Amino acid sequence: MKGTVLYGPRDLRFEERETPAILKPTDAIVRNSATCVCGSDLWPYRGINAVPQPTPMGHEYCGIVEDVGSAVKNIKPGQFVIGSFATSDNTCPNCQFGYQSSCQHREWISTAQAPLLRVPLADGTLVPTAEIPPNDMIPSLLALSDVMGTGWFAAHAANVKPGSTAVVVGDGAVGLLGVLSAKQMGAARIIAMSRHASRQKLAREFGATDIVTERGEEGVERIMDLTKRIGADSVLECVGTQESMMQAIRVTRKGGYVGYVGVPHGVELKGEDLFYAHVHLHGGPAPVRAYLPKLIDLVFNGTINPGKVFDLVLPLAQVAEGYRAMDERRAIKALLQP
Amino acid sequence: MKGTVLYGPRDLRFEERETPAILKPTDAIVRNSATCVCGSDLWPYRGINAVPQPTPMGHEYCGIVEDVGSAVKNIKPGQFVIGSFATSDNTCPNCQFGYQSSCQHREWISTAQAPLLRVPLADGTLVPTAEIPPNDMIPSLLALSDVMGTGWFAAHAANVKPGSTAVVVGDGAVGLLGVLSAKQMGAARIIAMSRHASRQKLAREFGATDIVTERGEEGVERIMDLTKRIGADSVLECVGTQESMMQAIRVTRKGGYVGYVGVPHGVELKGEDLFYAHVHLHGGPAPVRAYLPKLIDLVFNGTINPGKVFDLVLPLAQVAEGYRAMDERRAIKALLQP
Repeated sequence: MKGTVLYGPRDLRFEERETPAILKPTDAIVRNSATCVCGSDLWPYRGINAVPQPTPMGHEYCGIVEDVGSAVKNIKPGQFVIGSFATSDNTCPNCQFGYQSSCQHREWISTAQAPLLRVPLADGTLVPTAEIPPNDMIPSLLALSDVMGTGWFAAHAANVKPGSTAVVVGDGAVGLLGVLSAKQMGAARIIAMSRHASRQKLAREFGATDIVTERGEEGVERIMDLTKRIGADSVLECVGTQESMMQAIRVTRKGGYVGYVGVPHGVELKGEDLFYAHVHLHGGPAPVRAYLPKLIDLVFNGTINPGKVFDLVLPLAQVAEGYRAMDERRAIKALLQP
Repeated sequence: MKGTVLYGPRDLRFEERETPAILKPTDAIVRNSATCVCGSDLWPYRGINAVPQPTPMGHEYCGIVEDVGSAVKNIKPGQFVIGSFATSDNTCPNCQFGYQSSCQHREWISTAQAPLLRVPLADGTLVPTAEIPPNDMIPSLLALSDVMGTGWFAAHAANVKPGSTAVVVGDGAVGLLGVLSAKQMGAARIIAMSRHASRQKLAREFGATDIVTERGEEGVERIMDLTKRIGADSVLECVGTQESMMQAIRVTRKGGYVGYVGVPHGVELKGEDLFYAHVHLHGGPAPVRAYLPKLIDLVFNGTINPGKVFDLVLPLAQVAEGYRAMDERRAIKALLQP
């Protein structure tokens, strides 16, 4: 089997890798219908995260179950399944609290940019669809594996309620799907921070009512003006840098909520800043597994179409071009077809 | 009038100060029935916060209204009142969200360790009692001005609900009243971190079910053992140091809540630590004004007796001894009688 391997900064290869096999009785093997490139894949691709050795890549997937281990009870070969980027037994206390991405037996999926994938803890990680989806639904179902669930968690952690004013920091796929999530949760006003025409367009399509193109201090001032100098009820932080995090905190109203899902890189929050900001802060790796059943329904009944974030579709063999296009911001998100 | 003035580290004087007078039509003058020393007063007293010039001290107070400005409508001379350490108009958007301690017109009360006090924004800051309280109720009413309301906010921010497991980090007056607050909110289990016999005793009296004497890494381990390695639902951080904050975060379960009210000194939170901790974080200066009506009722009907944290009563003229006793941890909290 050929799969994706990162050798170092911007050195991505599509090369022969071992074909995955059942290693534990709780494993499943999934034949990917599609996989894709995540914004977080760009951290090591750009050399911001070290890559000490050749590293298989990818954590987003959906497809047909090919084989299951002897202890797997609920997942069966032939089913179409979607799973989270974090595996979960879905029974431990952390899972029961709704934090499957902090399952006591969590493993990170990290080899998904390939035709075949081994998924540990298959029963607790994978959710089968009621029927095999049509091909044009695959992008939206694939998005549920990470970006859509992550945008959903951002909106949920930011306490978006009917009538809320929400701000979304970040116009990557997660930020755009944060807009969609805030809309679904009933936000009356959704301010998207974006300076890219194609992303602004999609943000509007997903429900953004205002676009702010300014960043940093100017961006904060612009949003404070838009919210009568009060700040927003709910702010979705979908980047993970010091600047984006402080921007999010500073545009939140007193007693408001920041939901942060951008994997933090070099973020340090000063206790005093937080103290006097008076905001609620919640975030982390999204418990995608918790949301899958509901989000699958919303895709199947046509309520949401998160697959629109894929503005580039490539054969898996051209995965390197997918990374390049996203790195250069020519593409929002690249879907890869094995 | 003689009042308290801090000249520098451990140089506290009780000396002649200007008698307060109505400066704005929204002011009131209160003749203090009692005032007291706050744990946060110790930061400048110990030289941890700089004292660039002689500084009047004190922000906790209750007493009889002596005079009001021409624009004051609801507060009348002769009433017994309690007010927050932060003034508020109680009408601005931040106040309406329940964050009166971030009122758009907030001022900090800072001259209360004296017989008379000017209170700005009297109508929005002060709450009168239905009747003049008996003398033995004064300590508990005084506690509502800051420590009790702050412990209450910690428990509220930490989402304490009936049946919750709560941990209280810090055994100062705020921590102890955090225990009392968690108990009032229905926590089934309250673990207090304390290594001082007198404070442990009061914590038990207020509702603590477990006492953990270990600190740092050992304290974290002990609490994880007590919570089946899951962590607590609700953690009240009532200190404000890096160690106490990280202790709080590390003993909170996934999806649990940290309520932090200790004024942060040198606290820096790493984005990545927070991200993978998966906790909710909320805190800041307590919106005491929001809680005063309810807490006054609870004191008047005998449900709570937060005045028990005052284990030292001194004439106001001996305020320096009050600071010394708290600095040396001989006293939990010193009440001062003008």
